[in-house]
Amino acid sequence: MEIFVYQKGADFVEENFPIEKLPEFLKNPDNLVWVDLEAPSKEDEMVLADVFHFHPLSIEDAVMTRNLPKVEAFPEYLFFIVHGIKSETNPANFVTKELDGYLGKNFVVTYHHENFRSIDKVKQQIRSSAFVFGRGADYLLHQILDELVDLYLPLVDDFDNAINGIEERIFRTKKANDAILEEILDLKRSVARLRRITSRQLNVLYRISRGEFPLIEEAHLPFYRDVHDHLLRVSDLAESYRDLIGGLLDIQFSVVSNRTNEVVKVLTIFSAIILPLSLIAGIYGMNFENMPELRTKNGYYFTLGFMLIVTIGLLFYFWRKGWIFEKDD
Amino acid sequence: MEIFVYQKGADFVEENFPIEKLPEFLKNPDNLVWVDLEAPSKEDEMVLADVFHFHPLSIEDAVMTRNLPKVEAFPEYLFFIVHGIKSETNPANFVTKELDGYLGKNFVVTYHHENFRSIDKVKQQIRSSAFVFGRGADYLLHQILDELVDLYLPLVDDFDNAINGIEERIFRTKKANDAILEEILDLKRSVARLRRITSRQLNVLYRISRGEFPLIEEAHLPFYRDVHDHLLRVSDLAESYRDLIGGLLDIQFSVVSNRTNEVVKVLTIFSAIILPLSLIAGIYGMNFENMPELRTKNGYYFTLGFMLIVTIGLLFYFWRKGWIFEKDD
Amino acid sequence: MEIFVYQKGADFVEENFPIEKLPEFLKNPDNLVWVDLEAPSKEDEMVLADVFHFHPLSIEDAVMTRNLPKVEAFPEYLFFIVHGIKSETNPANFVTKELDGYLGKNFVVTYHHENFRSIDKVKQQIRSSAFVFGRGADYLLHQILDELVDLYLPLVDDFDNAINGIEERIFRTKKANDAILEEILDLKRSVARLRRITSRQLNVLYRISRGEFPLIEEAHLPFYRDVHDHLLRVSDLAESYRDLIGGLLDIQFSVVSNRTNEVVKVLTIFSAIILPLSLIAGIYGMNFENMPELRTKNGYYFTLGFMLIVTIGLLFYFWRKGWIFEKDD
Amino acid sequence: MEIFVYQKGADFVEENFPIEKLPEFLKNPDNLVWVDLEAPSKEDEMVLADVFHFHPLSIEDAVMTRNLPKVEAFPEYLFFIVHGIKSETNPANFVTKELDGYLGKNFVVTYHHENFRSIDKVKQQIRSSAFVFGRGADYLLHQILDELVDLYLPLVDDFDNAINGIEERIFRTKKANDAILEEILDLKRSVARLRRITSRQLNVLYRISRGEFPLIEEAHLPFYRDVHDHLLRVSDLAESYRDLIGGLLDIQFSVVSNRTNEVVKVLTIFSAIILPLSLIAGIYGMNFENMPELRTKNGYYFTLGFMLIVTIGLLFYFWRKGWIFEKDD
Amino acid sequence: MEIFVYQKGADFVEENFPIEKLPEFLKNPDNLVWVDLEAPSKEDEMVLADVFHFHPLSIEDAVMTRNLPKVEAFPEYLFFIVHGIKSETNPANFVTKELDGYLGKNFVVTYHHENFRSIDKVKQQIRSSAFVFGRGADYLLHQILDELVDLYLPLVDDFDNAINGIEERIFRTKKANDAILEEILDLKRSVARLRRITSRQLNVLYRISRGEFPLIEEAHLPFYRDVHDHLLRVSDLAESYRDLIGGLLDIQFSVVSNRTNEVVKVLTIFSAIILPLSLIAGIYGMNFENMPELRTKNGYYFTLGFMLIVTIGLLFYFWRKGWIFEKDD
Repeated sequence: MEIFVYQKGADFVEENFPIEKLPEFLKNPDNLVWVDLEAPSKEDEMVLADVFHFHPLSIEDAVMTRNLPKVEAFPEYLFFIVHGIKSETNPANFVTKELDGYLGKNFVVTYHHENFRSIDKVKQQIRSSAFVFGRGADYLLHQILDELVDLYLPLVDDFDNAINGIEERIFRTKKANDAILEEILDLKRSVARLRRITSRQLNVLYRISRGEFPLIEEAHLPFYRDVHDHLLRVSDLAESYRDLIGGLLDIQFSVVSNRTNEVVKVLTIFSAIILPLSLIAGIYGMNFENMPELRTKNGYYFTLGFMLIVTIGLLFYFWRKGWIFEKDD
Repeated sequence: MEIFVYQKGADFVEENFPIEKLPEFLKNPDNLVWVDLEAPSKEDEMVLADVFHFHPLSIEDAVMTRNLPKVEAFPEYLFFIVHGIKSETNPANFVTKELDGYLGKNFVVTYHHENFRSIDKVKQQIRSSAFVFGRGADYLLHQILDELVDLYLPLVDDFDNAINGIEERIFRTKKANDAILEEILDLKRSVARLRRITSRQLNVLYRISRGEFPLIEEAHLPFYRDVHDHLLRVSDLAESYRDLIGGLLDIQFSVVSNRTNEVVKVLTIFSAIILPLSLIAGIYGMNFENMPELRTKNGYYFTLGFMLIVTIGLLFYFWRKGWIFEKDD
Repeated sequence: MEIFVYQKGADFVEENFPIEKLPEFLKNPDNLVWVDLEAPSKEDEMVLADVFHFHPLSIEDAVMTRNLPKVEAFPEYLFFIVHGIKSETNPANFVTKELDGYLGKNFVVTYHHENFRSIDKVKQQIRSSAFVFGRGADYLLHQILDELVDLYLPLVDDFDNAINGIEERIFRTKKANDAILEEILDLKRSVARLRRITSRQLNVLYRISRGEFPLIEEAHLPFYRDVHDHLLRVSDLAESYRDLIGGLLDIQFSVVSNRTNEVVKVLTIFSAIILPLSLIAGIYGMNFENMPELRTKNGYYFTLGFMLIVTIGLLFYFWRKGWIFEKDD
Repeated sequence: MEIFVYQKGADFVEENFPIEKLPEFLKNPDNLVWVDLEAPSKEDEMVLADVFHFHPLSIEDAVMTRNLPKVEAFPEYLFFIVHGIKSETNPANFVTKELDGYLGKNFVVTYHHENFRSIDKVKQQIRSSAFVFGRGADYLLHQILDELVDLYLPLVDDFDNAINGIEERIFRTKKANDAILEEILDLKRSVARLRRITSRQLNVLYRISRGEFPLIEEAHLPFYRDVHDHLLRVSDLAESYRDLIGGLLDIQFSVVSNRTNEVVKVLTIFSAIILPLSLIAGIYGMNFENMPELRTKNGYYFTLGFMLIVTIGLLFYFWRKGWIFEKDD
Repeated sequence: MEIFVYQKGADFVEENFPIEKLPEFLKNPDNLVWVDLEAPSKEDEMVLADVFHFHPLSIEDAVMTRNLPKVEAFPEYLFFIVHGIKSETNPANFVTKELDGYLGKNFVVTYHHENFRSIDKVKQQIRSSAFVFGRGADYLLHQILDELVDLYLPLVDDFDNAINGIEERIFRTKKANDAILEEILDLKRSVARLRRITSRQLNVLYRISRGEFPLIEEAHLPFYRDVHDHLLRVSDLAESYRDLIGGLLDIQFSVVSNRTNEVVKVLTIFSAIILPLSLIAGIYGMNFENMPELRTKNGYYFTLGFMLIVTIGLLFYFWRKGWIFEKDD
């Protein structure tokens, strides 16, 4: 648990306080306090109930994972759940992590089981400048959300690459193989997850940015709107990826059916040319005693010639049908 | 029929009262009465009309099954229908059971034809502590709904497993078989049912939790919101399962078409290689008298060699086409 | 044309009045008049314009068929169109019939070209008890609508059976046949029709039951809500049937593609085993003079043995590929 | 340009006035003026700007084609664009034509590049009776729209026939042919167009009929509602045709896949029966010197008998598989 | 950076001012200033913050690209982002470019990294006439948007052509080829992009044209409505193209499956006719000593005749099945 305290007008943010001093800090409305609970111990967790007196249901939500993004107004504070993207995650299987938090008049509390790069970044900023704290608790929260949402963008680019990669392989590959199908399925599932997460998170940001909660100063709403717009872009792309991936499956299926058509055509051409020739050979392989052709001098050569004519005729027939010797359209 | 009565400020909840005392209990606004009708007899049912004077239409709804979840406000009470999940149900074929009930100023009435684990659990809680009753009728109702909704979660996990199981089998199985199709169809139907049920039930909880009904104290709304959020998670997953199952059918279809492509390729390669060789053999099986090759010393070996060359040429052709000897992409 | 008249407080409903007495009855607000026009003559129709002075457009709507369900408020009365289900109709081809009507302060007028079982039933009830009339015109109308909507339920069950029947046949049938396709198409069309009808009719009932029209007493709204809920259940099922039927087509298609895969596999196995054997036979059928094997004592038996080995090898190959001798997954 | 003028209370409508008298007519609020511009000359068009002083944007819209239906309120008049159906149009390729117009307190102006049967019909009515003009400008406009919308109905019937025709051919035709696909594609495109047009036009009529524009007398709203309902029926059917046509494509595809399955089955049965027999013949066509069977007296007949047994065995196998000799399900 | 200044009542617009004079111009409410920043230098960009004091977030949005269209109201000005179409773009791969801008009481600022034909066109108009400036800042903005939206129309026509081109090729081409699939995929992706862009841009125009922003004079709203309607037409067509392209994929797939059916039919007919004949030839090629037919005088001819009969019989069989000699339906 890290505690940051800033006194109005100060030039820097102080940290490394013991828990015991928290109530005192909070009493003074000129202070701005940020309590960050990263993978907190049971004792650290007690601060939520004992010091801040948050609603037990919200504490339960914070402690548990597997919650959807939401924002809920309590008389004295806002409770919110947002999701960040785990780093080094691959698009077909990306993982989100939950950030729970509270925003009060003069405090921000963040609670998370896993490390957040965005929060670390904000801490760095704070240590080098008190600017963010100087603008109030709501601005601090905005800063955290802004960094968190920005980390969605690399994931979106990864999706782009993954989709393009699959598309290329569909057209390049000659074999109908299941691996592509599995990847499409995974990606489809993944993009659906991204859409659901961003859509709920957008709703949270939309409600904040339209001024629903008086705890957020009106002058800071454009900043939340900005975060909202960034996430909207992510959600917009997720929406379009979904269509693309759905399309990939259709295309993959069409390509396989094209390939099958091609294979069947090869089979048909081979069979249709060779079988008649074999029949001719078979006829002259019959053992009838009275087969005058067999005795003629050039019967063999005439037969071979006839076979050639049949072959040419059939090739011509298939060429007319457009099955062979045709340039790609 | 079980009757629980709690007097404001008491330390425990009393039960095992005869029906006759109900009107007396209800008259006192300091009492909180819970009447639970499980698979009630005709006489027990009369209590709804005779003691509580509920609207006949609502009683009809309660007695009948096959109703959709709903909540309806009458001047003095709320009437609600919710659905619970039957235990030991499998996802492809899960069954819900109906819980009907009434919420009044100082009473809760629950009516159900089948046993509910959630209700049993609440009864246990009550017997060990009067806490729930101490917070009022609306809090008691919340407790029941909370337990009921929590029992949706195991079903959701079962769906997850079922879908993953089918997906694995689709890719593993070598034979196009109908059994998978039947399972997908069942699961699809089942998940559609889950979506419909949860969506209506969500609506009920949403209307309650946004404070539409003054019978629910405002301080208790977050508890209903909490139940709503839990069910929302279920509904959210149901929604995503639906997409996944729709995808499974496409994938299964694609896999079968991949398999067919493979089979046809084997057929084509076999035919295209063997048929020409057979033709050659057929030609030298003809009985023409004048076939000089037949008389040459090494004609037979030359022919076998020629067959080998043809074979190699065709294998090369198919390898170039990417049909054989190619690694999976 | 049948005319029912009830005077407030009376014990029974009178009928069999001549048209001429209608204006007199209607003048007295203590009377409740129901005029039922079943397949009316041109003269009977005149009553709508001459006695009731309904808006000419509504009369036109009533006389014509092929209208969608609707409800329209005029200053003194409501005009409504609802659809009932024709009896002895089969789901793939069900037919609705139109019931037009007017509701006034002290009258109900119903107009229909075809016989309605629901209306006949209400008439029977009326003849045995004045209860329905005693509660007013709006209650009488509710009674008619209630009976009409209840007759949707058997149709819904028929759909259920039809869908299950088709599903079973899809999996049972060995031949790809068009008859199933035609049935699915018919059913799909039919269920779409049901959805459209019920959705518009729901809208009519919703508008009435939420108290939009002051002609309906507030105390009677729950009764309309009840009718609405019954129809909602029908509409809900129709919605789910639509998904199911869409799924049936996919499944049927998948089953056919499974069958084709199976057929092609049989073809491939037969060809791939027999063709090489035929080639061997063909080679030893060549007429070269110098083929030493032909002269060996056991050449024939060695050849047969070799054929057996090839056969076993190919069977092993196909077994490894999982095409033969494999249990269903 | 045709000008119709009606003075309040008059018995007939006068026409054939020169343009110059228009301003005078319009000044008198007791006059009702209808100016119909059919394929107007540049000079005629000037009347819109010079006499009526309409907004230049609306005039631009009127002169140009390719606009979507809309209604726009200006302080003194309404501007509307609606679409009519060209006569002698076929459903797969139907064409609409644009009718632009203005409605003022005492005037209606209609502008169209092409002839409208509906407008001609209204003119006829006017020449035989002043009734329509007697009810005011808004009633006159209703009359025009009513006639225009009624001409959508034949198109809807044509769609019905076209869809039924294609469905029948899909099941009847034995060859997989592209012509049906092209027709389905055309029809699909066409019905999408119909839906878009009617949906926008419905919106225009809805806005008028709900009383948004004070220029339409409240007593005339039911007439607009009536027009709206007629078009709603068209739009409703267009919606259902869309589903049907989408279904046709699926069905056509399923039918082709059924046919292919059938064809492949024939191929398989032929190959699987004949190839083994050929192998037997091939074996006894080998030229080994030591083949004792060849010397037996009845070897030939035994072989033919064996071939028969193999044939029967294979037929039995395919019959068991349900591929031959089976009744249609 | 180009600066245009117009003084109320003047006959022409002046330009080519140094940056330094901007604050002075802006102070006078009788001036109308247009500052156009095309691919501005860092110093030019400073004008946004230093002279106009725009919100830093909006400046950030302006400088960055990859934003979605939006409009945002600040107390003193509107900030908007719209997208134009790059010229010489092809439909399967069209590119948009971003135009950011501000509208104030007496100024318009436009910011864009790339050249806009629409802006160049407005500049030309301005240089030849002060009319646009004379009507105010909001009218000037309308003029820019109007020209920008008009340049969407050629793209829409290109889509039309591209879709028709692909459709034609699908039906014409005899080979199942992947190139068409790739084009369909590209077009599908492209049209989805167009839909998303136009839908957000429509929303911007809708909000402006319904009078949400007091900076836009009410008398100018119809002009914005006009721009909105033009874009609505584009969006409407984009919507329909999406359906068409989705349909193309289905059709292409159906056509390939038709082709495969045809190919398989040819294979089957060839095999089914030739294989039996080969069997007959094979039988009489057997080397049994006792085959009486071989010794008959006309055995050979009888056999050939029998082969002919078999051929005719099979042709008849396939003709009956409708596989050969049938006219296209």
